[in-house]
Amino acid sequence: MGKVFTNDPYAELGVSSKKTGVHKATKNLSKGLYPGAFCQIVPMSRNLPDSILNSFAQVIHSDGVGTKSNVAYLAMKEGVSEDFLYNLAQDAIVMNTDDMACVGITNDIYISNHIARNSNRVNDEALAKVIQGYSNFFQKMQALGINLYNAGGETADVGSYTTTMGIDVTASAVISKDKIIDCSNIGSGEYIVGLASDGKSSYEDKENSGIRSNGLTLAINTLLCPYYRKYEETMDGTIDKEKLFCGKYHLDDKLEGTSLTIAEAILSPTRTYLPVIRDILQDDIEVSGIIHCSGGGLTKSINFGNDITYVKDTVCRLAVPPIFKEIQEIRGIDDYHMYQTFNMGIGMEVIVKNSSDADKVIQYANKYHIRAYLTGHTETSKDGINRVKIGSSIYTK
Amino acid sequence: MGKVFTNDPYAELGVSSKKTGVHKATKNLSKGLYPGAFCQIVPMSRNLPDSILNSFAQVIHSDGVGTKSNVAYLAMKEGVSEDFLYNLAQDAIVMNTDDMACVGITNDIYISNHIARNSNRVNDEALAKVIQGYSNFFQKMQALGINLYNAGGETADVGSYTTTMGIDVTASAVISKDKIIDCSNIGSGEYIVGLASDGKSSYEDKENSGIRSNGLTLAINTLLCPYYRKYEETMDGTIDKEKLFCGKYHLDDKLEGTSLTIAEAILSPTRTYLPVIRDILQDDIEVSGIIHCSGGGLTKSINFGNDITYVKDTVCRLAVPPIFKEIQEIRGIDDYHMYQTFNMGIGMEVIVKNSSDADKVIQYANKYHIRAYLTGHTETSKDGINRVKIGSSIYTK
Repeated sequence: MGKVFTNDPYAELGVSSKKTGVHKATKNLSKGLYPGAFCQIVPMSRNLPDSILNSFAQVIHSDGVGTKSNVAYLAMKEGVSEDFLYNLAQDAIVMNTDDMACVGITNDIYISNHIARNSNRVNDEALAKVIQGYSNFFQKMQALGINLYNAGGETADVGSYTTTMGIDVTASAVISKDKIIDCSNIGSGEYIVGLASDGKSSYEDKENSGIRSNGLTLAINTLLCPYYRKYEETMDGTIDKEKLFCGKYHLDDKLEGTSLTIAEAILSPTRTYLPVIRDILQDDIEVSGIIHCSGGGLTKSINFGNDITYVKDTVCRLAVPPIFKEIQEIRGIDDYHMYQTFNMGIGMEVIVKNSSDADKVIQYANKYHIRAYLTGHTETSKDGINRVKIGSSIYTK
Repeated sequence: MGKVFTNDPYAELGVSSKKTGVHKATKNLSKGLYPGAFCQIVPMSRNLPDSILNSFAQVIHSDGVGTKSNVAYLAMKEGVSEDFLYNLAQDAIVMNTDDMACVGITNDIYISNHIARNSNRVNDEALAKVIQGYSNFFQKMQALGINLYNAGGETADVGSYTTTMGIDVTASAVISKDKIIDCSNIGSGEYIVGLASDGKSSYEDKENSGIRSNGLTLAINTLLCPYYRKYEETMDGTIDKEKLFCGKYHLDDKLEGTSLTIAEAILSPTRTYLPVIRDILQDDIEVSGIIHCSGGGLTKSINFGNDITYVKDTVCRLAVPPIFKEIQEIRGIDDYHMYQTFNMGIGMEVIVKNSSDADKVIQYANKYHIRAYLTGHTETSKDGINRVKIGSSIYTK
């Protein structure tokens, strides 16, 4: 093991996994109709009849691929492959749709894309591949019975502040109020089922590393070797160069324990759980909350429920996907910070009221060849402070 | 006058005002329910009753402030003022809402913000000011009877490809189908009324330079002097440095002919025409099209209507706002490229079927202390090719 970072290794790279600053800056903004829900839920337009306003609500959600786009950029520049450009659309879409799945939305989602690029580095041909990726993913989902709708978008040539490209999506959907999953209903004595982020689901073309689209800045700069420092446009100029690209891999090296190259592992398209969540919600299962383990990794649940301690006692016994093991090993990151930054192999958590329902959730995941586990349970926090316990680590907000 | 650029001066800075590459990349994507409308209009969610799908439609629109954010950044770093950070929200919102006004949407608009930042250069305090700007503008619009609704958003710390900050918005609204303005209805023999982008409207706190949020990369690098080259994070690394910051102004210099400093002129908050357009659409005026003179400047209309020549014969006789005169003078840009890049003092065009309605449109603008002019008329293009004529310049797609 390398140097053990005592500070947050992600903060050193200019990224806050807890987003403390953002939470502070947005604290005065409206939290919507269901302040405890996983996504902000807002009323329907007042241009619609009252009956619609009473019965339905909507979610308008924004997220993107973050710095994952830089690796697709490197793969293009190095002549490894340009095909990764197509996958970025899936990443950007799923980062939104799988947040929306957590409030109960699993179909009929409108996708508006936003691309910021440096046009001298990301030319029109590369742009066309990124945009083609949207249509490709819409078709893929259509085959699974899930309707995504292109709602337009914007490509901005903003090379004065964008060195490569930013790929973001705003997704929007309507939900019947009686179908909303509101995480504030999470109670004590409930069961946490974790759905695997790695492996190969029945609707994926190849093995997935499980990385999804969070923690990428740390993953990239830990795995890839100093050779890539020649691409200064992928390096944050405010960060000491010695902290960037300090790994041992080239893009086309193999990642041991997988069938993937390092490029394929970092750029594994973010798996969507929409088909699984749809099936779960169509069944007669008492779901009290669904948590997408995105920013904040496996500690994300800390932000949801009232006076809840999430005891994830099984998590440390699960095999951690190779990509996370490599990141931890190379950079010498402690378990505490790993679970706070990465999903560590669990991309989505479904919280149910009884154990037979937990079994059903596992079966629905397995139906799509996605592993799933009972990863823990909930308890009441007597002091009213939400907590997540993973092994010996205890997290609070 | 300086050197006259024979090539497109904007393309030399890595920006395409015609967006040829983007149009090519998106040509296979659905254009929505009204392919000729100014914004893409999509069906309502299939989760809603059929009666709603039959009677209503929605717009989900994305746009942002572009490189205008860099000037607010420079003003902050130079200690000129941090107050410009608040205004960026208005820019990002209005770039969307005033596009949406062109299809008839002037109220009940949901705003989802997206901020990409380099957290080491744009800290949490600066971020909080940008975000506070959203609430400030919502309040301002509320006082004018226009309801904007916060729908959440996302702040991404992506310093690996963002050197300063990107401020974008996705706006969403519902419209009754019988209220939709569809530019494909623009016919020949109609009247073009231009609404001024400069001056001081009744709902603005100070004079507006008229620049809005298009052409900013060219404006910034033409007006501001080489002193600012020390902020490499605001310079596109793929562009020859001699082409950047090659003007004569410091941020706190006065812009002659205005009450504004150069910083205030470049950062004039994008004026919204929502109150004017709302009043026009509430009256009994036959509006056939509304064109927001955004990307493409005063030639934007070329993309709308069928077989139409827009003869803007009055435009060249109008006084051009000082900021555009300075840009043209310093960089030696010909009229052809100026009108293709900037609004040149006309931020919005309303096209009406008869001259008495044109008078009414002018009166509604004047009511808010916004100058307005009959700037031209429409003719049929006998060869089926849309054209814009401004003085001796003729533009085609």
